[in-house]
Amino acid sequence: MNFGSDNWAGVAPQIAQSLTKHSQGYAAPYGTSDLDKALEARFNDLFEREVAVYFVGTGTAANSLALSSQNKPGGVVMCHRDAHIFNDECGAPEFYTGGARLAPIDGKLGKFTPKALDYELSRFQPDFIHHGQPMGVSITQATEWGTCYQLDEIEALADVAHAHDLPLHMDGARFANALVNFDVSPAEMTWKNGVDILSFGGTKNGCWCAEAVVFFNPEKARELPFMRKRAGHLFSKTRFIAAQFHAYLDDDLWLELARNANVMAQQLAEGISLSSGAELAWGCESNEVFAVMPSDKIEQLQKAGAHFYEWNTPHSLDLGISDKRRLIRLVSNYSTSKDEVINFLKLVN
Amino acid sequence: MNFGSDNWAGVAPQIAQSLTKHSQGYAAPYGTSDLDKALEARFNDLFEREVAVYFVGTGTAANSLALSSQNKPGGVVMCHRDAHIFNDECGAPEFYTGGARLAPIDGKLGKFTPKALDYELSRFQPDFIHHGQPMGVSITQATEWGTCYQLDEIEALADVAHAHDLPLHMDGARFANALVNFDVSPAEMTWKNGVDILSFGGTKNGCWCAEAVVFFNPEKARELPFMRKRAGHLFSKTRFIAAQFHAYLDDDLWLELARNANVMAQQLAEGISLSSGAELAWGCESNEVFAVMPSDKIEQLQKAGAHFYEWNTPHSLDLGISDKRRLIRLVSNYSTSKDEVINFLKLVN
Amino acid sequence: MNFGSDNWAGVAPQIAQSLTKHSQGYAAPYGTSDLDKALEARFNDLFEREVAVYFVGTGTAANSLALSSQNKPGGVVMCHRDAHIFNDECGAPEFYTGGARLAPIDGKLGKFTPKALDYELSRFQPDFIHHGQPMGVSITQATEWGTCYQLDEIEALADVAHAHDLPLHMDGARFANALVNFDVSPAEMTWKNGVDILSFGGTKNGCWCAEAVVFFNPEKARELPFMRKRAGHLFSKTRFIAAQFHAYLDDDLWLELARNANVMAQQLAEGISLSSGAELAWGCESNEVFAVMPSDKIEQLQKAGAHFYEWNTPHSLDLGISDKRRLIRLVSNYSTSKDEVINFLKLVN
Amino acid sequence: MNFGSDNWAGVAPQIAQSLTKHSQGYAAPYGTSDLDKALEARFNDLFEREVAVYFVGTGTAANSLALSSQNKPGGVVMCHRDAHIFNDECGAPEFYTGGARLAPIDGKLGKFTPKALDYELSRFQPDFIHHGQPMGVSITQATEWGTCYQLDEIEALADVAHAHDLPLHMDGARFANALVNFDVSPAEMTWKNGVDILSFGGTKNGCWCAEAVVFFNPEKARELPFMRKRAGHLFSKTRFIAAQFHAYLDDDLWLELARNANVMAQQLAEGISLSSGAELAWGCESNEVFAVMPSDKIEQLQKAGAHFYEWNTPHSLDLGISDKRRLIRLVSNYSTSKDEVINFLKLVN
Repeated sequence: MNFGSDNWAGVAPQIAQSLTKHSQGYAAPYGTSDLDKALEARFNDLFEREVAVYFVGTGTAANSLALSSQNKPGGVVMCHRDAHIFNDECGAPEFYTGGARLAPIDGKLGKFTPKALDYELSRFQPDFIHHGQPMGVSITQATEWGTCYQLDEIEALADVAHAHDLPLHMDGARFANALVNFDVSPAEMTWKNGVDILSFGGTKNGCWCAEAVVFFNPEKARELPFMRKRAGHLFSKTRFIAAQFHAYLDDDLWLELARNANVMAQQLAEGISLSSGAELAWGCESNEVFAVMPSDKIEQLQKAGAHFYEWNTPHSLDLGISDKRRLIRLVSNYSTSKDEVINFLKLVN
Repeated sequence: MNFGSDNWAGVAPQIAQSLTKHSQGYAAPYGTSDLDKALEARFNDLFEREVAVYFVGTGTAANSLALSSQNKPGGVVMCHRDAHIFNDECGAPEFYTGGARLAPIDGKLGKFTPKALDYELSRFQPDFIHHGQPMGVSITQATEWGTCYQLDEIEALADVAHAHDLPLHMDGARFANALVNFDVSPAEMTWKNGVDILSFGGTKNGCWCAEAVVFFNPEKARELPFMRKRAGHLFSKTRFIAAQFHAYLDDDLWLELARNANVMAQQLAEGISLSSGAELAWGCESNEVFAVMPSDKIEQLQKAGAHFYEWNTPHSLDLGISDKRRLIRLVSNYSTSKDEVINFLKLVN
Repeated sequence: MNFGSDNWAGVAPQIAQSLTKHSQGYAAPYGTSDLDKALEARFNDLFEREVAVYFVGTGTAANSLALSSQNKPGGVVMCHRDAHIFNDECGAPEFYTGGARLAPIDGKLGKFTPKALDYELSRFQPDFIHHGQPMGVSITQATEWGTCYQLDEIEALADVAHAHDLPLHMDGARFANALVNFDVSPAEMTWKNGVDILSFGGTKNGCWCAEAVVFFNPEKARELPFMRKRAGHLFSKTRFIAAQFHAYLDDDLWLELARNANVMAQQLAEGISLSSGAELAWGCESNEVFAVMPSDKIEQLQKAGAHFYEWNTPHSLDLGISDKRRLIRLVSNYSTSKDEVINFLKLVN
Repeated sequence: MNFGSDNWAGVAPQIAQSLTKHSQGYAAPYGTSDLDKALEARFNDLFEREVAVYFVGTGTAANSLALSSQNKPGGVVMCHRDAHIFNDECGAPEFYTGGARLAPIDGKLGKFTPKALDYELSRFQPDFIHHGQPMGVSITQATEWGTCYQLDEIEALADVAHAHDLPLHMDGARFANALVNFDVSPAEMTWKNGVDILSFGGTKNGCWCAEAVVFFNPEKARELPFMRKRAGHLFSKTRFIAAQFHAYLDDDLWLELARNANVMAQQLAEGISLSSGAELAWGCESNEVFAVMPSDKIEQLQKAGAHFYEWNTPHSLDLGISDKRRLIRLVSNYSTSKDEVINFLKLVN
């Protein structure tokens, strides 16, 4: 019963096997092997167009490279107040950009509205240099609160960004979980609705450490090879990332893995909403479930071996949290089993 | 017959197995799992003292974090003109430090002398801010030319560095190859002779991507956790690095792997020096062999399937290189077989 | 009737004369002339203790050097949401620190409370690297809204900062105006109540471009000479700054200049509060007056030749602003004349 | 008899007067006053074309902004080994660019050849990211050794830079001295012979602190306003720089000032070459004279009140320097008088 985070999980067996399979013999380093090249081509297919794709080992590297590729002096990136890039990357985007700023926008459950975005952007006037200048907009899909932007919401945000001549970046650390939630194509979730750059995450969904920065306009990525190397994120034995991603994409394994995580989350959510011992904080749209629970119930669950974290309440949401009623976060993953869910729900009731 | 580089090689089977073994089940992320903690303890044993060790995925990251941990405004790091940090990291140390400078020192075959170091350092006067200020000294062991610093040479360089109140960093991308060459202990090669910070490389010696920054004075490493995270180099599933390193260190596998590489290099060197078709450029002290060869012989070898690179002549060394006689570099690795060497030498003769 | 900003004003005649006086003959450059050295000594006297003082040409440089002298990886500086460093320096502190973050704190009229500061700081836990780490606290005196921190308020904020092991920085772009408001000594306004670093501004108070970074613990300033030079802020003919500051401090000219600005502001404030045509938005404690005025009155004043700016309403303050009633800012300066004030007030009524 | 450096000198009386004249009354800040705007227009006239010009207070700021405006990840700027940007700016260009590298090129007396430049540039191959990538070429005119590039030499260097798709920057800290030496126009010295960006210095030639970055292709300067502000180099009372530059340019004062410096240097050079007590090290082409002198003569001169510095010998030049014969540098300036020169020469003989 481990619902701590999807990064507590291991690696899908197919991915472990692929690594072993590719571990012997010689291959060209630094992204130039056949396996590497084949993977790049595969991303074109995956996204139904030519893309420029760069592989790295962490989501923080992917996000930071994506944002710093659009760097401007005095630059400001608009993102949600609860975004991973804003809260959980120890200032990596700021470091990579040499001091650009992330400007947090409020919004319900990890999502901000086109109107809120437009309001924040309109405070910057091209000739008033003192404020700095916007250089990008970043959204997270699925969000840190387990919610997802609808396709038309993405499009509307992209329209605002583009009207201000800014690129739209999507942090897709849980991209697969969002895809599975809507059952749409990667292209639809991204460039067909205006996304310009995607951090495509594999790590949280059954890889060891496999992330990609995908540019839908390859022209805008010209400096990325230098930026990645300069940041120490170009592996020499790159086939190690490629081997993970090939297995990840083979036979739509990645969607299958995400589907398991989402289904398990859905069952957790349903079980909780039907239980007498806890309350679903809000609906689950990916693989994160948030619930309000009596404090003694939380302790009881933990003693019984359930692993999960208490969580801060989202801004401006009244969940009636107190010393006696607390918010918890449950994250399912590619390997979560039905038994884990059933056992957990038994304890909740 | 692949002597292109040690990063063309794959992964030692024991390391591949370890990865598979640790790929299932839950483990705490971000360096906090039992496996991670056990590895940290193991580095204390390995170096016979308490060290602060930080794991990353690339040598460039290790070097850049090591150097930037000692950062100063207007800082200058002394290194060899042929150092990897100077030539092959696309400005990563400069980027990590926000603009410190690497000052190249000349010296025979990748090594500079204490006298040369002292001369360069003495050009900086504490009150003359215009020149900037030294902030560290970096040496490579084994060097980019396959040579090694003797222990007393390291000690003498450390003495100069310390006399100027500067830390001595060792880029140990091929640390194991140097150790095996001298048959000394990791402690002797480092802190017992004055090294303050070590980039401990595993990747070139049979790992996928396993590098460590080792501080012999843990006090000086206090900011490293933030620096590593801020650079996007803290993996979430850190057990993946730990699993590699545990297997690497088990039963002295790492020394066995390096020994194979060195022995094969030695045989290549001997074969070449005895051959009529080529000339050993200088003696081999690790796993890199440099040879001078007629150009048509080079082409002939390549046509026969031998993989290696032509190389620039080291500064101020007259090897009689011309259009007809060129310098080549041959790198052996943990997996190089006797057959590869024999076949190659047959072709040379 | 120019109330646009104190940087629309020129230079006090005594300061212009001092510049002329020191414009001829030879003097040692880069802060080493007798005039420079005498000025440094004078700052010790001014602050009644040994200080380390560094002269620069802009307030943005002073603030950015002050903050970056305390830099940490993943560092976060707490400041007010309306602070100049947060809003009006185009990301200079972030640039100088290579990516530290400014974290805005809310609070009434430019001031935040010790409680609010403590709350923000307590969200950072030393071992949770993902959030980054606090590295300093910055307050503005007088604030951007013309208000001032009381001495005991400064002390209480310093106590919180120090309890978290953080330095307290004061942006004193209008330091003289604050001093004059309270009629206390520079020492009382700063280190005697816990301020560690001061940006001491002269430009807004009758200099051309004269600012100083003052460290009350000289030990903490050791790298400043390198940082200033590296940022291009060490003038060669430094006597030019020194000549300004000497005249500025002679016979307490600086306090006299600030007193004129404050008295004129006070008269503006009083006149407005007694007028029928406008309303004082809040009390004036330095040289900035904020008033609420009918829109047509604003236009009328501007047509009559009064220069001032409309201003955004401070957060969470309800001033009943609408299309018909707007907020304006009036800034007096060292040279503002009684006539300007009287003429303006006549127009208001 | 002060030949220490041109920054030991004061300010031309006309410039001091201009400052006083513009010190009273209100003016728009941040480069928007009439005086500022008129100065911008004046630079168009001066250079016989539309330029984008940005005023700052130090040469280091001018050079660093110029170079960082052309920044690339892993970027490398080619410059002479003795360039001011390489030796005397405490790493400012590296800091401004967040870690670009300056690559020193050897060459006689501060000048490098097109061939040497081409050789260095050709070592970078577009696809070999490990080495980084060239981003600009910088020359100094007049050089640090008092020599000057001929117009056709500038053109030839520009041709090489442009063939590699790189901009040519000229550090013109002593631009006026070079102009006067050749008696050519500012346009001829710069864009008409391929210079893309100029650091136009006034400080060394009789201003307090007046420098300008001039872009001959205004398109390439679009981010400069943000870069300057972000670096803290946008003064609020910008008329202070404008007042200096207006007087500097009025009636060709700047050329007159430089002419005095050059003529005095020429007389020093001639006197030395004819003297028995010293030897001219090489010919003088601006306002710096280098001489070889017996050590006891040097001491004798200093005792007699002459101020100047001993200097390191240029690379690869054999001047027969020993303990008994040393190299000195003599710098004349706008205010150097004939008497100073005559008195000095008397002492030499």
